[in-house]
Amino acid sequence: MHPALAMRADLADRAALKARFETARSQTEQLAAPLEPEDCQVQTMVDVSPTKWHLAHTTWFFETFGALRFKAGYARPDDLYGYLYNSYYEALGRKWSRPERGLLSRPLLREVMAYRSHVTALVGDLIDTVSDNEWSELAPIVELGIHHEQQHQELICTDIKHVLSRSPRPYAPYAPAPGANGHGGAGPVSWIGFEGGLVEIGMDEDGFAYDNEYPRHKRYLYDFEIASRPVTNGEFRAFIEDGGYETAALWLSDGWDFIQRNGIEHPLYWRRQDDGSWLEYTLSGLKPLDEDEPVCHVSGYEAAAYAEWAGQRLPSEPELELLARAHPDRGALLFAGPGVHPHALNATARPQCVIGGVWEWSSSAYEPYPGYSPPEGAVGEYNGKFMSSQQVLRGGSAATPQSHIRPTYRNFFPPGARWQFSGIRLARKLAPA
Amino acid sequence: MHPALAMRADLADRAALKARFETARSQTEQLAAPLEPEDCQVQTMVDVSPTKWHLAHTTWFFETFGALRFKAGYARPDDLYGYLYNSYYEALGRKWSRPERGLLSRPLLREVMAYRSHVTALVGDLIDTVSDNEWSELAPIVELGIHHEQQHQELICTDIKHVLSRSPRPYAPYAPAPGANGHGGAGPVSWIGFEGGLVEIGMDEDGFAYDNEYPRHKRYLYDFEIASRPVTNGEFRAFIEDGGYETAALWLSDGWDFIQRNGIEHPLYWRRQDDGSWLEYTLSGLKPLDEDEPVCHVSGYEAAAYAEWAGQRLPSEPELELLARAHPDRGALLFAGPGVHPHALNATARPQCVIGGVWEWSSSAYEPYPGYSPPEGAVGEYNGKFMSSQQVLRGGSAATPQSHIRPTYRNFFPPGARWQFSGIRLARKLAPA
Amino acid sequence: MHPALAMRADLADRAALKARFETARSQTEQLAAPLEPEDCQVQTMVDVSPTKWHLAHTTWFFETFGALRFKAGYARPDDLYGYLYNSYYEALGRKWSRPERGLLSRPLLREVMAYRSHVTALVGDLIDTVSDNEWSELAPIVELGIHHEQQHQELICTDIKHVLSRSPRPYAPYAPAPGANGHGGAGPVSWIGFEGGLVEIGMDEDGFAYDNEYPRHKRYLYDFEIASRPVTNGEFRAFIEDGGYETAALWLSDGWDFIQRNGIEHPLYWRRQDDGSWLEYTLSGLKPLDEDEPVCHVSGYEAAAYAEWAGQRLPSEPELELLARAHPDRGALLFAGPGVHPHALNATARPQCVIGGVWEWSSSAYEPYPGYSPPEGAVGEYNGKFMSSQQVLRGGSAATPQSHIRPTYRNFFPPGARWQFSGIRLARKLAPA
Amino acid sequence: MHPALAMRADLADRAALKARFETARSQTEQLAAPLEPEDCQVQTMVDVSPTKWHLAHTTWFFETFGALRFKAGYARPDDLYGYLYNSYYEALGRKWSRPERGLLSRPLLREVMAYRSHVTALVGDLIDTVSDNEWSELAPIVELGIHHEQQHQELICTDIKHVLSRSPRPYAPYAPAPGANGHGGAGPVSWIGFEGGLVEIGMDEDGFAYDNEYPRHKRYLYDFEIASRPVTNGEFRAFIEDGGYETAALWLSDGWDFIQRNGIEHPLYWRRQDDGSWLEYTLSGLKPLDEDEPVCHVSGYEAAAYAEWAGQRLPSEPELELLARAHPDRGALLFAGPGVHPHALNATARPQCVIGGVWEWSSSAYEPYPGYSPPEGAVGEYNGKFMSSQQVLRGGSAATPQSHIRPTYRNFFPPGARWQFSGIRLARKLAPA
Repeated sequence: MHPALAMRADLADRAALKARFETARSQTEQLAAPLEPEDCQVQTMVDVSPTKWHLAHTTWFFETFGALRFKAGYARPDDLYGYLYNSYYEALGRKWSRPERGLLSRPLLREVMAYRSHVTALVGDLIDTVSDNEWSELAPIVELGIHHEQQHQELICTDIKHVLSRSPRPYAPYAPAPGANGHGGAGPVSWIGFEGGLVEIGMDEDGFAYDNEYPRHKRYLYDFEIASRPVTNGEFRAFIEDGGYETAALWLSDGWDFIQRNGIEHPLYWRRQDDGSWLEYTLSGLKPLDEDEPVCHVSGYEAAAYAEWAGQRLPSEPELELLARAHPDRGALLFAGPGVHPHALNATARPQCVIGGVWEWSSSAYEPYPGYSPPEGAVGEYNGKFMSSQQVLRGGSAATPQSHIRPTYRNFFPPGARWQFSGIRLARKLAPA
Repeated sequence: MHPALAMRADLADRAALKARFETARSQTEQLAAPLEPEDCQVQTMVDVSPTKWHLAHTTWFFETFGALRFKAGYARPDDLYGYLYNSYYEALGRKWSRPERGLLSRPLLREVMAYRSHVTALVGDLIDTVSDNEWSELAPIVELGIHHEQQHQELICTDIKHVLSRSPRPYAPYAPAPGANGHGGAGPVSWIGFEGGLVEIGMDEDGFAYDNEYPRHKRYLYDFEIASRPVTNGEFRAFIEDGGYETAALWLSDGWDFIQRNGIEHPLYWRRQDDGSWLEYTLSGLKPLDEDEPVCHVSGYEAAAYAEWAGQRLPSEPELELLARAHPDRGALLFAGPGVHPHALNATARPQCVIGGVWEWSSSAYEPYPGYSPPEGAVGEYNGKFMSSQQVLRGGSAATPQSHIRPTYRNFFPPGARWQFSGIRLARKLAPA
Repeated sequence: MHPALAMRADLADRAALKARFETARSQTEQLAAPLEPEDCQVQTMVDVSPTKWHLAHTTWFFETFGALRFKAGYARPDDLYGYLYNSYYEALGRKWSRPERGLLSRPLLREVMAYRSHVTALVGDLIDTVSDNEWSELAPIVELGIHHEQQHQELICTDIKHVLSRSPRPYAPYAPAPGANGHGGAGPVSWIGFEGGLVEIGMDEDGFAYDNEYPRHKRYLYDFEIASRPVTNGEFRAFIEDGGYETAALWLSDGWDFIQRNGIEHPLYWRRQDDGSWLEYTLSGLKPLDEDEPVCHVSGYEAAAYAEWAGQRLPSEPELELLARAHPDRGALLFAGPGVHPHALNATARPQCVIGGVWEWSSSAYEPYPGYSPPEGAVGEYNGKFMSSQQVLRGGSAATPQSHIRPTYRNFFPPGARWQFSGIRLARKLAPA
Repeated sequence: MHPALAMRADLADRAALKARFETARSQTEQLAAPLEPEDCQVQTMVDVSPTKWHLAHTTWFFETFGALRFKAGYARPDDLYGYLYNSYYEALGRKWSRPERGLLSRPLLREVMAYRSHVTALVGDLIDTVSDNEWSELAPIVELGIHHEQQHQELICTDIKHVLSRSPRPYAPYAPAPGANGHGGAGPVSWIGFEGGLVEIGMDEDGFAYDNEYPRHKRYLYDFEIASRPVTNGEFRAFIEDGGYETAALWLSDGWDFIQRNGIEHPLYWRRQDDGSWLEYTLSGLKPLDEDEPVCHVSGYEAAAYAEWAGQRLPSEPELELLARAHPDRGALLFAGPGVHPHALNATARPQCVIGGVWEWSSSAYEPYPGYSPPEGAVGEYNGKFMSSQQVLRGGSAATPQSHIRPTYRNFFPPGARWQFSGIRLARKLAPA
């Protein structure tokens, strides 16, 4: 059995897994609570899915891989759901066209919420009642489904942010995190040195991981240093003011084309005021740009150009994994002063998301690890088939559930993606002593 | 003063105009009543506007041309409304991009409904209270606004039909018209002869008309005959079965390109079943194709190809006006038997629309009449500026309010438009005696 | 038999027709003489065809409608030619995709020239040798082919002008017309009055006409006045300087979109210099804008906006035909002074084209005349199927062969076309005495 | 100084370098010899450049980096050349738009050939006459220019093949290689085992390399086996016949989209006959598919899908470098029997290209080696800025000049590229003993 779907010892406790399952389901609904049916309907670009669709799709996941397999005689409330809410699993048949998710006025939001309740109750019941034999198969599926649900919690944040930002007077559904404006400054960056040599990366410990984090394997790294915190808004503003967006020599060829074609001159949600100052749209509203927060919503191209401008480079994927292993309290690195917004706040700060950490663009393309193989069946489509033209991001953002963060986690997006909570951490060759 | 904005004698009765105003406003809301916020949000193509937008735009019209001019100190409830709900009046400043109307999750539907009530009450009050001097200016504006409102009632029907039709299980908001399925058959077509010579077309009578219906002017027509009823679904099916959509020689060059490029093989809402039979989506649901109803939702290209196939031609605009003048009870021509769905039903049948008459594609491009001039100011943008690459349609459809139909009415759409309630009436040269 | 393909008396003289045929063929080749194989290869946009393609297509026309029908056992030199050089005749089977005409490096230019010689000799021979019976069918085809050849002579000029203009240092293949810069000024415009009433337009005289010029028929016109010469570059410059391209109220809605979307701010071949002066690219090279020449290479939208700005209107199609009938020496109207470039010069001035008259945009959509019917067979596709979304132009240009100009001639292009030699003549209501 | 531009000992011999320079220039011209001006003009897609452009651009390279720097007072024959023939060097100012290279009918082919002669003579003269100091700078530039010229020799082959293939009767400019059809069969594949561990890849030896091949660095590899020859046409046909192009599970997600969107069902130049057999277009003409030749003109997506179908995987970049180092006579591996088409034939077989080896898609994204840095100045744009969304190919093709092949060479294209001479070699985990 693929390690990503193995029955680990800690899954034996049904009550514990059920509690985590119900918490995850409920947290998704808390995110949607301040939104109206109209908000949940809109799709502003192909990459964005309507909130209503996320609410339904995560339910479809538990229904398809859980209820339909383990509940004898189970039938979907509506046959169409299997078609409408399949995201990309080719093995599961026809699916509704992605760019047209925003056209589905029906089913209504309240129908989707009823669908959620129905499936949550049913899967909860299955957790209690399946035989031990079935449990060994169901438990890893529920575990996978919880992580899948958490991924979509972050996507709900990224997508609704894009939707609401397009309104001429953007709505701010979430209150700011407690202490959000009292972090006391980013402080100067320091450099953390790592010695090179043969290292191992990837998952081997107990605990859940996606298939793409396996197998643990050896890499040879050279000595390097890595920044103690991400690049801040203030630092990125200096790049802009130095003509960074007008200097072709700083950019990858694709990146230069990308910013020309799309007229990109600043991070996605920054808005220049007539007096030259900047506002930033956040899910708590439009606010003056906070110079000490990590720059966010930049593409991989902008990250690479910034690094070039700064005379450094982006860290590779293994380098970021080494950093994460060495600093498991890594959130605390983000800001040196008091009032930090560490990842530790995520669990409670949600849904007041988007005020803290950022995913960090690595220099590494998203490729299979040596010896990688996807699980059998439709869940095998979870990761492997996307290993093309994507860049790995590491870390986690203020919108990532705390329990979803782990040092081996491989997030990935095309280098032009900007609507994710993506930022920049710098690395460099170890300076000679 | 332009005749379209003149103070006619029948506008002197304030109470009567107020009643018509309130009826028109209320009828729009009745159309929206069975729709949910999600339905009212969606825009399926550039030509389609969300129902919510129509509800707001018709309100903006009365606010902009009425309240803002005649109510001292009036301010919009929200400044943005002037920007969001301007359709195409360049003279009134910037406007929200048309293809992005469906992205406006905010303002919410309930906010738009409150905006409607607010402006309806206010304009009602103005009708009662303005001075006689002001009344001579306000009355024609209210009159124009009522007709504008009625146009958007039909557009709400065409647009929501397009939206709902895209759902995999389409919603049917309206019940069928009484007697809808008891019309007793279309009966054979007969031909109504008209003698040629110098005729006059265009508006000169008392009664409201748009600027584009002026001035009344002379045309020279040749003798012609015109069909006593529109082409039926059954007749159009014969065209399909005879290979009409595969025979280039029947089509205008643009039309042939159009159906190739868009893969068009039948009227917009027809759906072929596996057994070869046809269903049609209507606002009352998906039903077996009624062979005796007028074919509807065909483009001007399909109309022209059908006429070519039938060995006839499309009537010109003046020919259709002559027909309408000669048969003011024209609705009754649609079906020969009992159970007809004449236009006379429109007033009561609404919102059970889409079961009767159709707009009829003429062979005439939409051009200004000799001596035409638009009114001064922003309302001058109502019609004239669209006189390019559009084809005139005449008549009215089951979704057209009865009081909105008149013999001189010039509807117009690009020849590729299919989502309107558009059908076909044939004409031909008078056969020699 | 359709009048456009009738055997008129003047076609009986085989030698005379043969001479005209050979002249026409030779004139096409004179146009191509100063061009290199590379010039003849390029296609700069879908509307433009490579010169090589024009050379081949006009040959294909004579081969398909002449040689293949009247020469027993005739086979094309290459079967592919029937496929490659069919322009738009659906009845004649598959055809090479229009946007890909520029990809055909093969056949080479010299092979196409050999194809020309082959078919010219063969058709010349047929003219001499077919039976009288065959002659009654062949003669009208040769006549039609000559006019078709002449149309493509003008298209070679418009298309190669577009091609060569795209080069950073544009090539000027043709010398200026004799006296081109000595015309002595346009002089002030005067207004020619016409009394309204029932008139007849369309062809009925002896002499060749296309099918779309039939039948002659009655129209009712109102009194009008029409300008004695086209709008000049100098006059159009005043429109630009007055903000014409920035004033939405002057434009048709489609036209406003068109100039916004394409960033249009002046006629196609004008180039603004840093000092604010203008150059114009002509087939004789880049030259300072001549204020007295007719403005050329404007779209129908620009023509309509100019007329609106000037407080006049565009003339209708019948009005322009009346003008042409009243002034058969119409070329002489173009310029008042000595050094004129009348149409009379065309025959000898060619290939020194593009220094004289312009096609004039009418206000009329291109529609069939009452009673119009196309000829039977593939030649029936010559005109009728394009009667959609096109605007009629009347007159003729400096690139139109003199013998191709007649008062009833209906040229047509979509209102956005700018690469034709198209200009503007104004009309207005007759001023009260 | 960057090692890619270093003055190596073997460059001291001016006469030897001059001979190589003149040979390279002359070989390019031999490739163009059988082509006509029309062939050299056409651009069939954005990726393809016209042959004429390649001929000019390679000249521009020597002119810009050689003549302009080392020849006092040198001026380009035409200032425009610096603008027209700059490919992508942002540091060198504005450049002609890539998709419009095919629009440049001027300069003519014969003018470009004169430009070539002019610059070749001039650079030859500089090689003889510059001071020793200058020589130390000029020599590496000439060396780089020769390799650049050789790259464009292959691109001329790939691009003209695309151009000529689009003709309905494609031209075959080159004769087949001697013995092309006598290779005696591909023979069964065998597997070459490599033991894993720490290895070094990248250039460190004497001899020229591009900047992206530096620095030599350590990698950790696992044991692997690699196929003794590329996948053949016959093997790939089995993939097709097994439904490979219809089986989503075999494809990367991007790849599946790519083949759906583009309707791809076989390698680029295969053509299915009515009887189910296949032809392949080659530069020697259309021939029956040779089952024993390497499959060519497949995208990286098709390569990955084939490997998945075969139950193997694509080799990584380091694995292919290890293979190349272990088998410097690697061409001989291609075919086991007599009549081989080894790379050794390239030098003489050219321009009879496209009958031998293929570039092999690796599984590795194109990334900088650890410690990579581009050279200073405009030549620094040669490689580094393309390190995004590209896949590495290794080896060389029958169109690659023999002296251009080396084990460390990194070719790269987007995974959707198909018009290169790209094929497939399989790898797999070392089977347990």
